[in-house]
Amino acid sequence: MRVGIINVTGYAGVELARILLRHPEVELVSVTGRSAAGKKLREIFPHLVDTELIVTAELDRVDVAFSALPHKDSAVECLKALEAEARVIDLSADFRLTDTAVYKAWYGVDHPAPEHLPEAVYGLVELQRERIRTARLVASPGCYPTSAILGLAPALKHELIEGQIIVDSKSGVSGAGRTLSLTTHFSEVNENTQAYGLSGHRHQPEIAQELNKLAAAGAGARGPVEVLFVPHLIPMIRGILSTCYAKLAEIPARPELQAEIRQLYRDFYAGETFVKVTDAPPQTKHVAGSNTCLVYPVVDPRTNTLVVISCIDNLVKGAAGQAVQSMNVMLGLPEATGLRQLGLYP
Amino acid sequence: MRVGIINVTGYAGVELARILLRHPEVELVSVTGRSAAGKKLREIFPHLVDTELIVTAELDRVDVAFSALPHKDSAVECLKALEAEARVIDLSADFRLTDTAVYKAWYGVDHPAPEHLPEAVYGLVELQRERIRTARLVASPGCYPTSAILGLAPALKHELIEGQIIVDSKSGVSGAGRTLSLTTHFSEVNENTQAYGLSGHRHQPEIAQELNKLAAAGAGARGPVEVLFVPHLIPMIRGILSTCYAKLAEIPARPELQAEIRQLYRDFYAGETFVKVTDAPPQTKHVAGSNTCLVYPVVDPRTNTLVVISCIDNLVKGAAGQAVQSMNVMLGLPEATGLRQLGLYP
Amino acid sequence: MRVGIINVTGYAGVELARILLRHPEVELVSVTGRSAAGKKLREIFPHLVDTELIVTAELDRVDVAFSALPHKDSAVECLKALEAEARVIDLSADFRLTDTAVYKAWYGVDHPAPEHLPEAVYGLVELQRERIRTARLVASPGCYPTSAILGLAPALKHELIEGQIIVDSKSGVSGAGRTLSLTTHFSEVNENTQAYGLSGHRHQPEIAQELNKLAAAGAGARGPVEVLFVPHLIPMIRGILSTCYAKLAEIPARPELQAEIRQLYRDFYAGETFVKVTDAPPQTKHVAGSNTCLVYPVVDPRTNTLVVISCIDNLVKGAAGQAVQSMNVMLGLPEATGLRQLGLYP
Amino acid sequence: MRVGIINVTGYAGVELARILLRHPEVELVSVTGRSAAGKKLREIFPHLVDTELIVTAELDRVDVAFSALPHKDSAVECLKALEAEARVIDLSADFRLTDTAVYKAWYGVDHPAPEHLPEAVYGLVELQRERIRTARLVASPGCYPTSAILGLAPALKHELIEGQIIVDSKSGVSGAGRTLSLTTHFSEVNENTQAYGLSGHRHQPEIAQELNKLAAAGAGARGPVEVLFVPHLIPMIRGILSTCYAKLAEIPARPELQAEIRQLYRDFYAGETFVKVTDAPPQTKHVAGSNTCLVYPVVDPRTNTLVVISCIDNLVKGAAGQAVQSMNVMLGLPEATGLRQLGLYP
Repeated sequence: MRVGIINVTGYAGVELARILLRHPEVELVSVTGRSAAGKKLREIFPHLVDTELIVTAELDRVDVAFSALPHKDSAVECLKALEAEARVIDLSADFRLTDTAVYKAWYGVDHPAPEHLPEAVYGLVELQRERIRTARLVASPGCYPTSAILGLAPALKHELIEGQIIVDSKSGVSGAGRTLSLTTHFSEVNENTQAYGLSGHRHQPEIAQELNKLAAAGAGARGPVEVLFVPHLIPMIRGILSTCYAKLAEIPARPELQAEIRQLYRDFYAGETFVKVTDAPPQTKHVAGSNTCLVYPVVDPRTNTLVVISCIDNLVKGAAGQAVQSMNVMLGLPEATGLRQLGLYP
Repeated sequence: MRVGIINVTGYAGVELARILLRHPEVELVSVTGRSAAGKKLREIFPHLVDTELIVTAELDRVDVAFSALPHKDSAVECLKALEAEARVIDLSADFRLTDTAVYKAWYGVDHPAPEHLPEAVYGLVELQRERIRTARLVASPGCYPTSAILGLAPALKHELIEGQIIVDSKSGVSGAGRTLSLTTHFSEVNENTQAYGLSGHRHQPEIAQELNKLAAAGAGARGPVEVLFVPHLIPMIRGILSTCYAKLAEIPARPELQAEIRQLYRDFYAGETFVKVTDAPPQTKHVAGSNTCLVYPVVDPRTNTLVVISCIDNLVKGAAGQAVQSMNVMLGLPEATGLRQLGLYP
Repeated sequence: MRVGIINVTGYAGVELARILLRHPEVELVSVTGRSAAGKKLREIFPHLVDTELIVTAELDRVDVAFSALPHKDSAVECLKALEAEARVIDLSADFRLTDTAVYKAWYGVDHPAPEHLPEAVYGLVELQRERIRTARLVASPGCYPTSAILGLAPALKHELIEGQIIVDSKSGVSGAGRTLSLTTHFSEVNENTQAYGLSGHRHQPEIAQELNKLAAAGAGARGPVEVLFVPHLIPMIRGILSTCYAKLAEIPARPELQAEIRQLYRDFYAGETFVKVTDAPPQTKHVAGSNTCLVYPVVDPRTNTLVVISCIDNLVKGAAGQAVQSMNVMLGLPEATGLRQLGLYP
Repeated sequence: MRVGIINVTGYAGVELARILLRHPEVELVSVTGRSAAGKKLREIFPHLVDTELIVTAELDRVDVAFSALPHKDSAVECLKALEAEARVIDLSADFRLTDTAVYKAWYGVDHPAPEHLPEAVYGLVELQRERIRTARLVASPGCYPTSAILGLAPALKHELIEGQIIVDSKSGVSGAGRTLSLTTHFSEVNENTQAYGLSGHRHQPEIAQELNKLAAAGAGARGPVEVLFVPHLIPMIRGILSTCYAKLAEIPARPELQAEIRQLYRDFYAGETFVKVTDAPPQTKHVAGSNTCLVYPVVDPRTNTLVVISCIDNLVKGAAGQAVQSMNVMLGLPEATGLRQLGLYP
């Protein structure tokens, strides 16, 4: 199988390269990048120590194409790849939101390819495995949404919570990408923590859309959920930890509820390779470099609130690893192929 | 004026020394520490480059004594200092909680000096200035409570919010002190974020107590507030950023509400030297090394929620600086004396 | 093949576990640890997400035993493993120094097993491959020596340098291990750089011994080398960057010398999987999590000095990865088996 | 006294503002910055919490002008300020090198104001105090040269060393300034160490020039010194630690030499407020935010080498603080006025 990466030079793109160069069942044959075209991949990225790949301006013919371009540009290149009969996994936001009006409101442009939205599958494998198997176009989830949705899916399916959901997320700086900005300048961001996106972050509608799908798939008695999402920038490179808060539907919280919810979570993710329900609060370091998501639900009896902590590596389960997981499903490979790397601790 | 520090060897204690050694109106004449007794202060702490103070086992006679001991031990030493006719500022939790049953529930021991609780004043100067002026015993607030209370006080006073309050705090590692533990071991905590205290953190009852005082001081129509507090450990040394969430009392949120609330906050803190209401989300780096608290209230109209971001340096406004601020008030000095150092940026 | 780790609970031990759990040709069947005996490995180390191994007090029967104990204790356990007919790879210093008097001078104890020194092979595969193939006991090199020796070997072999060698090394904090100390306490070591070991560091005699072996293996005209080694502690977790300085033997430096030396280095390491000679100054981040050593020799014509920059991940090529590389050679496996993981960038 | 800062928006400029806003004897009345002209200083830099200064395009009339512009541009503005009868302290390199040919070789441009070189005084107060007193134009030293020269001055004055000097420096990232670059992008530089400037760094000729002045001022028997300077980028914000190596003139090193040299260093810096000779290896954290330079000389008897460790905060003693120290001397103020802030530890 021949695979390719459109825009290898950002952090999601180069992380795809790191994983795909060691994937035993596919061959990375083409990587593109505008300004880097003509250069050896390992000259730009010396950690890719033994590849002879040259960055090109245009994607070669491949069976599976990953796009790591920014939104809007990404859709354009994805269409080209689809026309060239590749199966396509888009890491941008272009095919995640099903409502083009919502897309326009948050991304400020008309959707570049609305006719392809119906066939796009939201690439959260744990929740969409069957549809991904046959998908031609996968919209790989955003990093924050991945952590929030995996953390809350069991609670919504079992109608454990109701009303407003608060997602307070803490992200490493690599989530802001490789493009230079004062916000990602070392001396500005080290020894510093800040909230951002307080007037609205583009991952909010994505989280709300997917959580409401889950809420609707429950018995439906609880009605739609409201989502308040506040991301924070943390002085570390990789990792997202989302702390999710929601009122318990059953009040007051019985003493046994804690253990019951833990068990419901375990059952929900039984058989999953990449989602683990933990017995202690998880840490982002536990998943650095790995495709694992750790989820820890806990009841606060004082306020009848369910608190769920969810941890991922934003570049792996939150981006490149999850995209490769989708590819494995699309190709009928064992889902963990090429993704078994353990977290890099300490 | 002669001042002294009981237990100078922890981070709060040595930060007191840093500030008091440069305070123009008092003289630091005595510093204690058990294992370090007999050593020169600047040999243990080379940044205190020009002091000749020797650490002793017992406090010398002073006019004002600061205690930076852990709870329980602190009360014992504070009593001794009171008996020696010093005025006392206790940085431990011993005199913060007014209810001894709550103290016992959270600290696991009987209160060591319940008879002194009535005279103890909670040392949050912005809210207790008049009582501090004449206090003999000040209970200096905890770091998390300082950030949460200053962030929420105007909203509670003006009854802008109701129901449950969530305080999601992010703290630098110095808040965990100088005592060794795996949780503060560099390789474990760098490039890592984690929640902790999920089964209950000792600052929760302190926050709840003070917020309910404020709620009761309002018109009282809203009733008591519930507080859910989740602290997180961030890979930085100094700084606390608290993100506070509470439902607006007035629903739906009118468009003008954002500006009105910002103005109410400004009016509330008008004239304060150390609390500033900002027009953009504040960052912990803005206050590193300074006694400033930055507060930023913002309305989320989608969920009718008030979000307040509050930033302090946990060792200054969250501990040593705030204690010196109380001392200045007690001594009738200008409140900012010795505390005018600007944040160390970048 | 059954393999085991003696003392899995330190950073070198758990890094061995991370690598061996994913090694396709051996099975990790036994891990020991004193205080952790009886616990599940993945409870202590949640990044080892899917192993069911239990930590035990004693090593089970294995074909290859790795010891990650501190010196002296390590020799004792290595002997037991040898008696149990395992082949042994010792990551401690016990079998590195060939002279027991030097061992005693630097480690302060009599050598615990001098009779085994003759058969021990210094496990720097690139320089000792043939001897390792048949070794029963491998002394895996120290982290600093690995970086210094690989950086200087080509220069010594070709007699490019003479006289005194200065090795100024910068190490991440994980090199100081998992044992708690003020030196590795986050708030003390973050935003900080310091030199240490200025009165003599235990890796100095190891570097000197191995460099002198190389010097003696040259034509010998240059005589023995003197080594001045100064390590520094850097606020990062993984990585050693050694900057090595030595006078060029040929003075004054011809303009072509730079290119010639680069080529001699390339030739020396031609065919090596894990040592790469770079065209630009290497960075520790390029090798984080990988078994690669990057080497960059450069001539300073103003002072006729050869400067060599050498980078490794101290826990991989400087410890666990290198030990597994030795194991692969001992077992006749392709040398890179289980060690092909690329650096984790960014 | 009215003082002003030309180009307040870089890290050296804003650090000058931080210090001068709290200086008790001068008033900061004017700050310039091109793109920021018209903005409030505290909007750009929220840590300067209580100033009402507006950034302007041109400097107002001042008694002392500091220029924090890049080289070449700086000279142009310094001349304007001199013409306006201000005394000028230039933090750029423009007036540091006395030889215009050397300037051109390293900075790639003709010197913009060679006629002013004779009157410019190199602003290392500890070595040039008398000349600074009456200077109209001070060339404030570079950060690396400050650490190297203060570390080596006593050794050169007393002719303790001879031959080649190696300066291996480790610098925090703020030294690279506030201008964006991939080298200072958080995810690239955190958890990373690298050498740079290996083909020659602009601070090398400055170090060499000043050390040779010192060598010439000795008895002169040793001749000129050669300097090999290799800077390294360390993942911290502030701080330079320079490790300096030089052969002892007296060989072999007598056992007493260590103590004698320590004493010579102490005597050399006796009476200095800002240079301290330490008894243990100093750490950059000890001087963060302060104007102190810590110096630690140690003899390596194995190689007859003097090793000197020298620590400063690159933005204070290495830039803004040192410039204010020069100003104090020029104005006849006590040298430490406004510079007594202790290091911010931890």
